[in-house]
Amino acid sequence: MTETAIACCVPLAAPKLDEDEAIATAQLFKALSDPGRVRIVNLVATSDEPVCACELYEPLGLSQPTVSHHLRTLVDAGLLDREQRGKWAYFSLRRDAVEKLAAVADLKGACC
Amino acid sequence: MTETAIACCVPLAAPKLDEDEAIATAQLFKALSDPGRVRIVNLVATSDEPVCACELYEPLGLSQPTVSHHLRTLVDAGLLDREQRGKWAYFSLRRDAVEKLAAVADLKGACC
Repeated sequence: MTETAIACCVPLAAPKLDEDEAIATAQLFKALSDPGRVRIVNLVATSDEPVCACELYEPLGLSQPTVSHHLRTLVDAGLLDREQRGKWAYFSLRRDAVEKLAAVADLKGACC
Repeated sequence: MTETAIACCVPLAAPKLDEDEAIATAQLFKALSDPGRVRIVNLVATSDEPVCACELYEPLGLSQPTVSHHLRTLVDAGLLDREQRGKWAYFSLRRDAVEKLAAVADLKGACC
């Protein structure tokens, strides 16, 4: 479990944001700064069931190593949970990540 | 005005996300994938007034060229508005960007 990036990132409109919090917040956004990873999160988010890595290659049009790399990045960022079932790994959204991402990105009230 | 990234990015949990939308969404997150840019958005978000570029160098501990580069990236991504006042440029959050970012990052209901 790697919850670090999730645990200490803070909303963009937080009253004070120190350097460590800025790094953690940027890391969370960085995990979503690639179109392939955006599409993986979208495919997992729109599935009722955990999604097998093997179901991602074709719709994404990406190689197995590339998909594996993206999945590892998303798990490391705390956005996806990984569950091994026999030969294949299955992925689902982490509830706390979903809430944290929405909170971090929320600038309403700060502006404009 | 560069509204492209903002205009066509879509929520991570959108029912369908094509390659162009994934690229635009990833670009918006990429603009916030750097700790310096996170801190700039934070400083602008927590200010009642537009913020002069000249007020950012010291709190960020970054050079003028680096701050200028980050500001350009945030304006290009449609997150900040730039207003020239004599010698200095002043920056404020774009209301539509604020709403779009919150919408894009919103995965609630998609999960878990």
